[in-house]
Amino acid sequence: MTMTLGQLAVRHGCELRGDPDAIVDRVATLADAGPGSIGFLANPAYRSQLAATRATAVILRAADLGDCPVAALLAKDPYAVYARVAADLHPAPPPRPGIHRAAVLGAAVEVPGSCEIGPGAVLGDGVSLGERVCIGANAVIGEAVVIGADTRIAAGVVIYGGVRLGSRCVIHSGAVIGADGFGFARDRDGSQIKVPQIGGVVIGDDVEIGACTTVDRGAIGDTVIGDGVKLDNQIQVGHNTRIGAHTVIAGQSGISGSTTIGARCTIGGKVGIAGHIRIADDVVIGGGTSVPGSINVPGVYAGGGTPADTLQRWRRNMVRFGQLDEMARRLLAIEKRIRQDSE
Amino acid sequence: MTMTLGQLAVRHGCELRGDPDAIVDRVATLADAGPGSIGFLANPAYRSQLAATRATAVILRAADLGDCPVAALLAKDPYAVYARVAADLHPAPPPRPGIHRAAVLGAAVEVPGSCEIGPGAVLGDGVSLGERVCIGANAVIGEAVVIGADTRIAAGVVIYGGVRLGSRCVIHSGAVIGADGFGFARDRDGSQIKVPQIGGVVIGDDVEIGACTTVDRGAIGDTVIGDGVKLDNQIQVGHNTRIGAHTVIAGQSGISGSTTIGARCTIGGKVGIAGHIRIADDVVIGGGTSVPGSINVPGVYAGGGTPADTLQRWRRNMVRFGQLDEMARRLLAIEKRIRQDSE
Amino acid sequence: MTMTLGQLAVRHGCELRGDPDAIVDRVATLADAGPGSIGFLANPAYRSQLAATRATAVILRAADLGDCPVAALLAKDPYAVYARVAADLHPAPPPRPGIHRAAVLGAAVEVPGSCEIGPGAVLGDGVSLGERVCIGANAVIGEAVVIGADTRIAAGVVIYGGVRLGSRCVIHSGAVIGADGFGFARDRDGSQIKVPQIGGVVIGDDVEIGACTTVDRGAIGDTVIGDGVKLDNQIQVGHNTRIGAHTVIAGQSGISGSTTIGARCTIGGKVGIAGHIRIADDVVIGGGTSVPGSINVPGVYAGGGTPADTLQRWRRNMVRFGQLDEMARRLLAIEKRIRQDSE
Repeated sequence: MTMTLGQLAVRHGCELRGDPDAIVDRVATLADAGPGSIGFLANPAYRSQLAATRATAVILRAADLGDCPVAALLAKDPYAVYARVAADLHPAPPPRPGIHRAAVLGAAVEVPGSCEIGPGAVLGDGVSLGERVCIGANAVIGEAVVIGADTRIAAGVVIYGGVRLGSRCVIHSGAVIGADGFGFARDRDGSQIKVPQIGGVVIGDDVEIGACTTVDRGAIGDTVIGDGVKLDNQIQVGHNTRIGAHTVIAGQSGISGSTTIGARCTIGGKVGIAGHIRIADDVVIGGGTSVPGSINVPGVYAGGGTPADTLQRWRRNMVRFGQLDEMARRLLAIEKRIRQDSE
Repeated sequence: MTMTLGQLAVRHGCELRGDPDAIVDRVATLADAGPGSIGFLANPAYRSQLAATRATAVILRAADLGDCPVAALLAKDPYAVYARVAADLHPAPPPRPGIHRAAVLGAAVEVPGSCEIGPGAVLGDGVSLGERVCIGANAVIGEAVVIGADTRIAAGVVIYGGVRLGSRCVIHSGAVIGADGFGFARDRDGSQIKVPQIGGVVIGDDVEIGACTTVDRGAIGDTVIGDGVKLDNQIQVGHNTRIGAHTVIAGQSGISGSTTIGARCTIGGKVGIAGHIRIADDVVIGGGTSVPGSINVPGVYAGGGTPADTLQRWRRNMVRFGQLDEMARRLLAIEKRIRQDSE
Repeated sequence: MTMTLGQLAVRHGCELRGDPDAIVDRVATLADAGPGSIGFLANPAYRSQLAATRATAVILRAADLGDCPVAALLAKDPYAVYARVAADLHPAPPPRPGIHRAAVLGAAVEVPGSCEIGPGAVLGDGVSLGERVCIGANAVIGEAVVIGADTRIAAGVVIYGGVRLGSRCVIHSGAVIGADGFGFARDRDGSQIKVPQIGGVVIGDDVEIGACTTVDRGAIGDTVIGDGVKLDNQIQVGHNTRIGAHTVIAGQSGISGSTTIGARCTIGGKVGIAGHIRIADDVVIGGGTSVPGSINVPGVYAGGGTPADTLQRWRRNMVRFGQLDEMARRLLAIEKRIRQDSE
């Protein structure tokens, strides 16, 4: 897609320094940009690349304008404006309406003519799709699944029966939604009795779910993913977990069952969250943290391998951990000294 | 399924307090239950919900009977009885016998007429299925795989050639069984030589394997999963690992190659277990624990991010970890004091 | 495959002690070996099995020859020679050329007659395959993907559009290559704006990628996996990450976006590596380590749950961690003593 800097400035409410008729047709990094591309500067680590950029324009904060050798779009949050400009210039391809001859549709499915159903896709009985839904090749959509308009299900995704997804969601390949939660009761003889997992999964609008992420169905009642939640790859969401709107979770994190996470949380990668606890709204949890109990106060928490603590306190303790052997030696020296003094 | 309280009491050997002819047709949580449903109280955290429940009956311990406003089934282990009652009321749907026209079967396969083979499923040459096996849509069953009666393979599962599964297993979507183990020898020039993975995978009866869990084939000899083992989602089982009967492992745990885990172990989520070690029977390992060496004594172990220790000792040390910066300051203060005293 | 010990000795440059005309047709462990098999001794943990082995021959170091009751192939690195001998005796089955009737090929695909395309496989428009490429059942290869000669894509793999793979790669089932990186900008109202992921993935020659491993496409520019890299199962590789040639990474590790890892590194399982950092060539990182910042010096690093440190220092600190509660008590005792002394 091709746009002028003037068009972009108006569209995104940015002040423009430079030629409003200059044309851009793609985004690029400052280092790799060439004429016709628009870059951005948000992370100070890349500031040194600004002076030499060959981009046609750069999205940046007013404070960085002095070093910018080309046209500039001024933004308080350059990354957010960049995200919107990139979507303008690189729109997702629209669905190619039609049901591939190698797709398999069950009985009583609702598939509007605007949907794209790929080869090998399987839709169970009673599946209901909104307008312009895309179902990728070899994806399997279980019985009575309901999917809202403009949602895209990538190739090879599996959605178990009865799951409900909202509109404008993106589900990446390898994701599995609605498999049985992990529920077993140990019997007197040491064997396990399976607890039937009869709940469902309800996913809101504008949710993105990464590759090979698994969201289990509820044991009784539903697992619930709120509007605008973004889950990275290889995340495990246990049964009856509830994730509040606009919460973002990075890759390989795991949430045990029946836990409730608030809205607008930011959770790093490889975080482990225990079951049956609550995390407040607006909580930030650093990568690798273990969260064994509820977090009731918004704030920043961390604790790689150790229970979550405030970021500041955890960092101080981690510095001391690196001195632990030395501390132990100093302690020993004091004890020796005291023994000598008392002899 | 509809049953009377009297039927359930007899079937599961429970004392009934209430009307034996009262009918229930579903399970429910205490909070959401309505007439016609049966709830349970096992976790004391939910005790406060008992008084206001609208369930027709509740499965609980005799000690909780006083607060129960409705009929009650008394059980020493309410959760185990609940699991059985839930299976009575919500039985898994029976297979719908038949081979879908969009399934692809290789040469010399054995598929009894009671099996259900979904659309897009692929069975390699020489696959042998027991009675009433279900193969989900788009699942791929490699050459010469043998699967016991009543096992259910969900949509999109991949089982490599030569793997053997027992009866009554459940394998969830995204699971991959029998991929090559991770075996490479570093060559003099720094490159890697692949070690052919020529062993197999042998899985016992009544095993459940979660979504996106991977069980690698043996390098030489087999990877072995014992009867009744339950693996949650996104678990990695390395080549030639052996897991004893009725052991349960929670999500995102990983077991390196050639490790032997005993029977009836309970292993939490995100646990990492080193290769070439042994874990005794009846060992409990807390979530997030690293297990770098063998555990020879049954007991409860923990150690998020640190080597496994007894739970008690690890908890004490973790409390001290949270005081580490303060300890360091106190140590410094003592050293200063001693220096002053000796001046 | 059947070979004589003489043939193997010549082929791999080993000194032979024993009958050059003795025939072997398979590899085996020392414990399970029978006549006709060849074993190896590399890990001293298995040395006790040597004396009783019934193998026809054993690959071992000259130092272990004294205890060997059968013929021996002497090697400085027995495991590397074993890997090569195993590949001689157990070669991967060659492709069975042909396009299965249940495969679906898009427009303008290049598929040489030597390729094997399995049932249910889907190749998008413009896919280009080298000679003897195997595409497994129900795998999905996106538009314009390019795959080099002799690469094997297992059943159910999904490769998104535009990804480029080299020659002789092996991609295991459940792997997803080229899904969107995790890029979102938080908007003023707390919601997330998706950053289009317009880069690609470029994978070198001789790369192996394990089951359910995910490699995200670049945000702008490519994610790059160098020649000879071996990735185990369930690894997450973030967008714009670069992994140098012949680096090996074990299962369930995760690498955040825009990180550069050097060549010939050995990275254990469950390692978490932060984004936007650099790791030098020839770095070894122990399992479970968190790597929050760049590592500029080759060496061995560890730190389960704590930031990476040199292996030696981390081990010393971990020993002290196990004594932490005791240290705290000793500190308290000293403080008490000092208080008493000053009264």
